[in-house]
Amino acid sequence: MTKKEKRVEQITSRDVDFSQWYTDIVVKAELISYSPVRGCMILRPYGFAIWERLQAEFDRMLKATGHENVAMPLFIPESLLQKEKDHVEGFAPEVAWVTQGGDEVLSERLVIRPTSETLFCAHYAETIESWRDLPKLYNQWCSVVRWEKSTRPFLRTTEFFWQEGHTAHADEAEAREETLRILNMYEDLYRDVMAIPVIKGRKSDKEKFAGARETYTVEAMMHDGKALQAATSHYFGDGFAKAFDITFTDRNNELKYVHQTSWGISTRSIGGLIMVHGDDDGLRLPPRIAPVQIVIVPVAMHKPGVLDAAHALKESLSDYRVKIDDTDKMPGWKFAEHEMKGVPLRLEIGPRDIENNACLAVRRDTGEKQVLPLDNIAEAAGRLLEAIHSSMLSEATELLNKSQYEAADWVTFTDLIAGKPGFVHAYWCGSEDCEAKVKDETQATSRCLVETDKLDGRTCVVCGEPANHLVIWGKAY
Amino acid sequence: MTKKEKRVEQITSRDVDFSQWYTDIVVKAELISYSPVRGCMILRPYGFAIWERLQAEFDRMLKATGHENVAMPLFIPESLLQKEKDHVEGFAPEVAWVTQGGDEVLSERLVIRPTSETLFCAHYAETIESWRDLPKLYNQWCSVVRWEKSTRPFLRTTEFFWQEGHTAHADEAEAREETLRILNMYEDLYRDVMAIPVIKGRKSDKEKFAGARETYTVEAMMHDGKALQAATSHYFGDGFAKAFDITFTDRNNELKYVHQTSWGISTRSIGGLIMVHGDDDGLRLPPRIAPVQIVIVPVAMHKPGVLDAAHALKESLSDYRVKIDDTDKMPGWKFAEHEMKGVPLRLEIGPRDIENNACLAVRRDTGEKQVLPLDNIAEAAGRLLEAIHSSMLSEATELLNKSQYEAADWVTFTDLIAGKPGFVHAYWCGSEDCEAKVKDETQATSRCLVETDKLDGRTCVVCGEPANHLVIWGKAY
Repeated sequence: MTKKEKRVEQITSRDVDFSQWYTDIVVKAELISYSPVRGCMILRPYGFAIWERLQAEFDRMLKATGHENVAMPLFIPESLLQKEKDHVEGFAPEVAWVTQGGDEVLSERLVIRPTSETLFCAHYAETIESWRDLPKLYNQWCSVVRWEKSTRPFLRTTEFFWQEGHTAHADEAEAREETLRILNMYEDLYRDVMAIPVIKGRKSDKEKFAGARETYTVEAMMHDGKALQAATSHYFGDGFAKAFDITFTDRNNELKYVHQTSWGISTRSIGGLIMVHGDDDGLRLPPRIAPVQIVIVPVAMHKPGVLDAAHALKESLSDYRVKIDDTDKMPGWKFAEHEMKGVPLRLEIGPRDIENNACLAVRRDTGEKQVLPLDNIAEAAGRLLEAIHSSMLSEATELLNKSQYEAADWVTFTDLIAGKPGFVHAYWCGSEDCEAKVKDETQATSRCLVETDKLDGRTCVVCGEPANHLVIWGKAY
Repeated sequence: MTKKEKRVEQITSRDVDFSQWYTDIVVKAELISYSPVRGCMILRPYGFAIWERLQAEFDRMLKATGHENVAMPLFIPESLLQKEKDHVEGFAPEVAWVTQGGDEVLSERLVIRPTSETLFCAHYAETIESWRDLPKLYNQWCSVVRWEKSTRPFLRTTEFFWQEGHTAHADEAEAREETLRILNMYEDLYRDVMAIPVIKGRKSDKEKFAGARETYTVEAMMHDGKALQAATSHYFGDGFAKAFDITFTDRNNELKYVHQTSWGISTRSIGGLIMVHGDDDGLRLPPRIAPVQIVIVPVAMHKPGVLDAAHALKESLSDYRVKIDDTDKMPGWKFAEHEMKGVPLRLEIGPRDIENNACLAVRRDTGEKQVLPLDNIAEAAGRLLEAIHSSMLSEATELLNKSQYEAADWVTFTDLIAGKPGFVHAYWCGSEDCEAKVKDETQATSRCLVETDKLDGRTCVVCGEPANHLVIWGKAY
């Protein structure tokens, strides 16, 4: 029995049990380990390397648009959390409390940040004085803690990693512009780095962030037809500014409140990568986020010249993230292992290849094999990696497109939600009762409100009253 | 009154009140803000950018030597912390305790990691099976929490940022080699990036890390003659391995315990940068760690061509981290501000400079001014930055060298400690009583034990018994 057969036995088929397939991949691709701490995961080297790649790409985008990194404390005093009413109501039930430091029982309890709006606001209140101090375009990369009742690696964990951006602006227009600029950057990041297309929209009032005036979201479609809220960007208006007294003197020497935004993308995105691109052989990573873009597997490694040729091949691919697997495992084992880890491109090189001044290239996304001449190999490999990105994006776009449905009435709507995993487009009057009825009776939620000029004559799919919004509904992670 | 005069009034002189001077710099150079949380600081963009630079440099060194980044949870269950006896005794008195999550009072309290040996050990016990899994060379960049009674920005804070490396090896020799390899990398990092020379040595048993067999340290000399423990590297032997049952089957199929190390450098290093290099005009940053290496200040900015020339100048310096200060402040204000922030090189460009196809270069370290032709400016600026690094390193080396003393008897020793801030080299018998007497009567501590071949006939500076070690003693932060 080859390693490949053995491994294929070990992973559940995606179509048989999607949830178990997902769990198999996160463990067997060595992305995470379960930790001794309830709901917290260990990001192993390979899992963390994916996050590091995402960080590097988005950090570059943030810096290019004038954002600066900072670090706020891990703790929030209870009184500070309580300053903005909606915010504390949203978060207080799900936070971890520090009540003792050393031998000392604390006179005021500390919250471990579930998000850091309150800390940024307190800092802005202290440091912003005039229009010259604006805008503040701050971001931090950190972990936050939410006391989740049931958890799944990447998708919902007690502690998770993210970036949280917090900005302050002189007026509403600029803050709104920032909110949407960031939303577009998340779309770009998903499409151009992770090969995942997203749908952009606005959250309903019920689904929006605690304390936000408006929450925008990018929603992605998983292979099982469920949605993943992939990143969010919030416009706060001056609500936090009033609660925290963040004022500035404008150019006319008048005292004004700032307008704020906040926005974040988290390690959930890695869950998305798995559920959009993975298959029955394991993970498939788009080349731009893959920690290892090309794995070189020497064949008949003991034969003279093979290892040297593998190293020479690696040398000529120095523009890419390349690894040689020169362990003493059998080639079949190695193939299966790197397929499980989703390495986009495998190059095999053995005595016969060396004779022919070539190597064998195997695409992870399609399994397609082709002989590549070693002359100009860098160029050929680069073209293949680009082709893999495009092809994976097309495949994911096809998945997204074929999972869209429309429903004009309640029966069609409930049939679709029950029978066809995907997004159902349907009109909504805007009442929270109708929204709640959808959730109670179908387990689907409003994923986002999308722009439309076709409201005229449309009716709410739930109550039949005149529609005020076009909504995308779906079951979600 | 110019801004420069005003600012110089605002900062305390280094020689008048070193401690207040330090506090003035951390605040006025906008490195940190005090936070609403006791003992925790906010790293503002400029302060965090210095830490990002240090991270980037050391992360590169770590990856080049085969180390991999991971992320462990923030929490440690109380029972896990207790597994290694010395370790828990050392840390339990100074940790923050989480006792409640959401509405639920926890059945087992969680510690916020003061350091993560216990988590790494639990993970290693689970994932290491055979010699093929070794060595494990893991590192994480994170923050940790220690419930400090009195705190100072960077030097001692309740939460601080660091990297913590944790490695597991097949045998003692390899683990010892790793311990010292990392110690040397810390030395390189301080010397080559931060322009700070260090003294390397081993900690006494009393001063070593809780649970370590041996702790190695790099000690740096601050401008006031006090020491800063600048980074540490620990050899654990198999003590943690036995407590956590971390075994592997070796090449002969025998079950063995791993040998481990851990090591870290933290945001304390930024305190060191300030106290080694700063002067009465503020911070002075060595070019390789400076977030902004060159600031371009346009003079007579309103005159035609000046801003264009400044931008052209920036273009030609694209190999460096360059900022143009085109705010509407007066040039004198700008000079003072960038001196306070320690920007290594200032280039002034105005109408007359443009006429002469030149700019005026001002070194932050010496204040020296020189006219630089705009042709080949990149090369000239590069040479100047290198010269600044060398010159700052020489100055710091001179400071270190002139602060070394020797004492053969107790009277000389106590006189030196009381009267001459610096390091006192003196022999020691090795007894904890003598070490304790030094601390009680002089406030100095043993900074490190250094290699010597001159023990013969030497006596302990405290008790007069035969000496077993040459020790460097000093007061420390």
